Amino acid sequence: MKLISKIKGPEDIKKMNIDELTKLAWEIRDFLVQKVAKTGGHLASNLGVVELSIALHKVFDSPKDKLIWDVGHQSYVHKILTGRWNRFDTLRQYNGLSGFPKRKESPHDHFETGHSSTSISAAVGFAKARDLLKQNYCVTAIIGDGAMTGGMAFEALNYAGEIKSDLTVVLNDNEMSISSNVGGLSEYLNSLRTDPKYARIKKDVEFLLNHIPAIGKRVSKTVERVKDSLKYLLVPGMLFEELGFTYLGPVNGHNLKALIRILTMAKKTKGPVLVHVLTKKGKGYIHAEKNPDKFHGIGPFNIKTGQTFKKSVPTYSEVFGKTLTELAKADDRIVAITAAMSSGTGLNVFKQNFPDRFFDVGIAEQHAVTMAAGLANQGFKPVVALYSTFLQRAYDQVIHDVCMQNLHVIFAIDRAGLVGNDGETHHGVFDYSFLRSIPNMVLMAPKDEQEMRNMLKTAVNYNGPISLRYPRGSEWGTAITPPEEIPIGRAEVLIEGGDLLILAIGSMVKPSLDAAEILKAHKIHPTVVNCRFVKPLDEQLILDYGKTIKNIITVEENVLAGGFGCAVMECLEKNDIYNVRIKRIGLPDRFVLHGSQEILLKENGLTAENIAKTAKRFLG
Amino acid sequence: MKLISKIKGPEDIKKMNIDELTKLAWEIRDFLVQKVAKTGGHLASNLGVVELSIALHKVFDSPKDKLIWDVGHQSYVHKILTGRWNRFDTLRQYNGLSGFPKRKESPHDHFETGHSSTSISAAVGFAKARDLLKQNYCVTAIIGDGAMTGGMAFEALNYAGEIKSDLTVVLNDNEMSISSNVGGLSEYLNSLRTDPKYARIKKDVEFLLNHIPAIGKRVSKTVERVKDSLKYLLVPGMLFEELGFTYLGPVNGHNLKALIRILTMAKKTKGPVLVHVLTKKGKGYIHAEKNPDKFHGIGPFNIKTGQTFKKSVPTYSEVFGKTLTELAKADDRIVAITAAMSSGTGLNVFKQNFPDRFFDVGIAEQHAVTMAAGLANQGFKPVVALYSTFLQRAYDQVIHDVCMQNLHVIFAIDRAGLVGNDGETHHGVFDYSFLRSIPNMVLMAPKDEQEMRNMLKTAVNYNGPISLRYPRGSEWGTAITPPEEIPIGRAEVLIEGGDLLILAIGSMVKPSLDAAEILKAHKIHPTVVNCRFVKPLDEQLILDYGKTIKNIITVEENVLAGGFGCAVMECLEKNDIYNVRIKRIGLPDRFVLHGSQEILLKENGLTAENIAKTAKRFLG
Repeated sequence: MKLISKIKGPEDIKKMNIDELTKLAWEIRDFLVQKVAKTGGHLASNLGVVELSIALHKVFDSPKDKLIWDVGHQSYVHKILTGRWNRFDTLRQYNGLSGFPKRKESPHDHFETGHSSTSISAAVGFAKARDLLKQNYCVTAIIGDGAMTGGMAFEALNYAGEIKSDLTVVLNDNEMSISSNVGGLSEYLNSLRTDPKYARIKKDVEFLLNHIPAIGKRVSKTVERVKDSLKYLLVPGMLFEELGFTYLGPVNGHNLKALIRILTMAKKTKGPVLVHVLTKKGKGYIHAEKNPDKFHGIGPFNIKTGQTFKKSVPTYSEVFGKTLTELAKADDRIVAITAAMSSGTGLNVFKQNFPDRFFDVGIAEQHAVTMAAGLANQGFKPVVALYSTFLQRAYDQVIHDVCMQNLHVIFAIDRAGLVGNDGETHHGVFDYSFLRSIPNMVLMAPKDEQEMRNMLKTAVNYNGPISLRYPRGSEWGTAITPPEEIPIGRAEVLIEGGDLLILAIGSMVKPSLDAAEILKAHKIHPTVVNCRFVKPLDEQLILDYGKTIKNIITVEENVLAGGFGCAVMECLEKNDIYNVRIKRIGLPDRFVLHGSQEILLKENGLTAENIAKTAKRFLG
Repeated sequence: MKLISKIKGPEDIKKMNIDELTKLAWEIRDFLVQKVAKTGGHLASNLGVVELSIALHKVFDSPKDKLIWDVGHQSYVHKILTGRWNRFDTLRQYNGLSGFPKRKESPHDHFETGHSSTSISAAVGFAKARDLLKQNYCVTAIIGDGAMTGGMAFEALNYAGEIKSDLTVVLNDNEMSISSNVGGLSEYLNSLRTDPKYARIKKDVEFLLNHIPAIGKRVSKTVERVKDSLKYLLVPGMLFEELGFTYLGPVNGHNLKALIRILTMAKKTKGPVLVHVLTKKGKGYIHAEKNPDKFHGIGPFNIKTGQTFKKSVPTYSEVFGKTLTELAKADDRIVAITAAMSSGTGLNVFKQNFPDRFFDVGIAEQHAVTMAAGLANQGFKPVVALYSTFLQRAYDQVIHDVCMQNLHVIFAIDRAGLVGNDGETHHGVFDYSFLRSIPNMVLMAPKDEQEMRNMLKTAVNYNGPISLRYPRGSEWGTAITPPEEIPIGRAEVLIEGGDLLILAIGSMVKPSLDAAEILKAHKIHPTVVNCRFVKPLDEQLILDYGKTIKNIITVEENVLAGGFGCAVMECLEKNDIYNVRIKRIGLPDRFVLHGSQEILLKENGLTAENIAKTAKRFLG
């Protein structure tokens, strides 16, 4: 019987000795590869933290002690160790185990994460709560070196250094976030890892101090003072020490004994502690070790070859990357910015073609957007490619640094709408609402890949803040023709019919067309419009059609509150149109959990069938 | 004739010698005090950067060289030096000089700011643009030590350290941001300023190394190595050096000669440079030196006494601070968090009463919100008090860390609506829109101070994410009675009438009541409802009244796009009500500039007169 199958909870880890834990670690690796090969998920990061997760549960006493996983995609091992290994076949499936910590799932999931760099702030909150209640437990945040570049991690480090509460930050340093890491911090960590200077100098100075002959009072006093000061200066991890942390490490993150020793030391240390743990992403599975980027988040794959099962149709992201590269060949003012998502956003191809015009700023969306504003200010056309859910991080910068100055920054908003298995933390379902209310912003959503190409060309030739948002995956896989500009604010009528006006946007154009087919069978003939622009709306078209068609349905893959349908109602109100009825279809006012995109779209009524059903009911 | 009156632009600074510049500095101080005493504005920070601004314009060549002022409230001296001194009587007045850099105002205002911590990101964008175009100019960001605690400043430092472009960051270190500064970084800066260790150790080690006798090869080699390493380790400003910057300083920020010398050195240094400048907020005006917090942003004041002209009515902020303190006396789970705005938000009184339960995290809104989520997770009732415009900084954290986990965090949103003289960067006019679309969020706005007290009590006794937003200044100054809870989602009918339904929210309740008075004279009798909740709306009330009153007007101090009126339209659509006409009054789809609140409200039609006029037109 395997060790893994005996684990009901962390208490079982505590009973095991080092040999058993070592064996367990390799069982878990095998288990992870087997399961994720079937369900897809985050593999490389979890393979990297097997020993770390075991050591944490050996040393700390969850759920009394709190473990907060930054981003949370590396919590699979933690889930296995807290009695959830037997649910891994359902990982990331509808109603199954989430790929991120969920409080409803287990008392060992203390705080829910999904976006980067939040764990230290949450840990500070936990620590302060404990102190105020005079309780006694440990709080540990586990954060990657990539997430550490996010500004809010620094805000939290800075604050933790001041309040001096007991808390441990485990820096899981794998020399990369999702793609390879960037920034001065990264270079600094690298120096801690590899630069012999840090280790050597301490020995050298000690040797020196021991060899200084007593030549008078001045020297003797100086030696004492220098010893005292150097002790401080020679601590590795100075940067963290400067911020008020005790720095421990670096330690080999695949050496269980060493990990247990250092975490025990951290547990005993008063005040904020930073434990620097060196891990290897993908550790133990050759394909993931070689391609940690590919195996960061991956679909089902063949274990032997490491190959995923190919899609026949290129994704929106791929089409975006290629199109931008095409456009950039003709326009050297086009530059591209991403926040640690060069592969995910499809920008890799741009990077290969224009390394000087490509900026991966690390997990730093705020900086990305304001840097773009600076570039635009000087005549460039920066294209900021972010996932919709992460753009939320830079909301103030979009308003304040881009739109207020009316600068020509292009937002390529990927993974908009329901993203599927990553679930509630990753759906991009608020962008129509939060972007639409900002003055000067133009907001587009293409019905398919070719239209996205057209919109991207439109965007780079526009002059002002402009966004295009498109979903995860692919749509029609339409024939790719040269991109053509679209007039700003102009919608496109796809089907004409006199009974109903269906105003669809983005990913909802296709199901709306399909709904029209269903309706025809019921003798209902709708006009179906691909609205293309959430802002500015094609008001003229709506008003013209509104003269003869008195029933409108709007369809969007965004929350209804403040979204596209709202914009249509605003248009009617603004133009004093009161003899038209409207019904909106979109996402409800609740967080949508994880599951395949198909299931989630269906669950939320964003299907041709439901559009048709709603239309029939609406028309009576 | 005064020197100041000769200044047409920075070229005139360049012609002056040190003596003249020194005289100019004191003229400028006098000028600033005289002018700001009349118009109100940011005084202390500008008095602190007089010499720095002069030195920057002496050394750099604006507009060719770019100066980017973080936050921008300290750009008054820069405005004086760039030929705008003769417009200072209009400072912060409608159609007058802005209190922040504005590109339309001068070619010397290269980038517009207003929120904290953006300048380094913008500077990186400028520097990259210059490099790509192979142009030749200097880029300098001037940032305070307070703004440096904002996460995005760190994101930018980190990235600048990697790309190694030439750029200068001037750290204007006045040992405080608005209130006294917080965090490990602040302590670190303090050590650079005051700790003799840094200065002493360098001398000590040099002395030591020179006194080591040659006792064999090992020592000799070691000495060389140590010299080499120590050179690195002994640089002050290590933290910045670690991130890839060359650190210069610290330098006395009121010594023109020293400033000019160090900035000239920075100009010549390749790669990113950080110049550490020590200044005194309020320098030269005794009242501002003594109370830099009070003189950060101040209304008109008496120059001799330093006293502002008292308002008779307490502000919303003051009522908020007092009420929270009252409530906290009875409920020890209430804690308060602010981001460097303890005085501005009225929390000073809470801080005095409950120092352990008060957290000023510095300019770090993201951290503030997620720390609150951590506290709420452990059973506390954190009240996060922020200005509406700064809450935008934490939008993702509100969605992701608070609302997704449905945690009981209370958002006290101050300065909502049009704030007046600070202008477009400080108006809080998007919060109804961006908060309303988040699931689980309850969103309230009181009609007056007493109702704010009631709402605060309602909020602390609720269990889930809940917000109340209130304007700058005061409303009715209503008699303050013990706070009473309000049923969630329940509106209040203030006047009954059969001709029109006016649905007003927050600050717009009072003008709506006044509008009703005007309308009565025209024989129009409206029902006026104080809606109190933007979310959840009192749908039942709207539906009930909608049965008999077929015309609705909504009134809000928020952008119309996605705002409160939109929520009312959504309610009608959701409930299939199509025989009711609606007209919305609110802010337009453009950025509103600066001017008094009164003028701006009038400009945008948020007055009793315009509500009445709109109603008359609407009813035909």
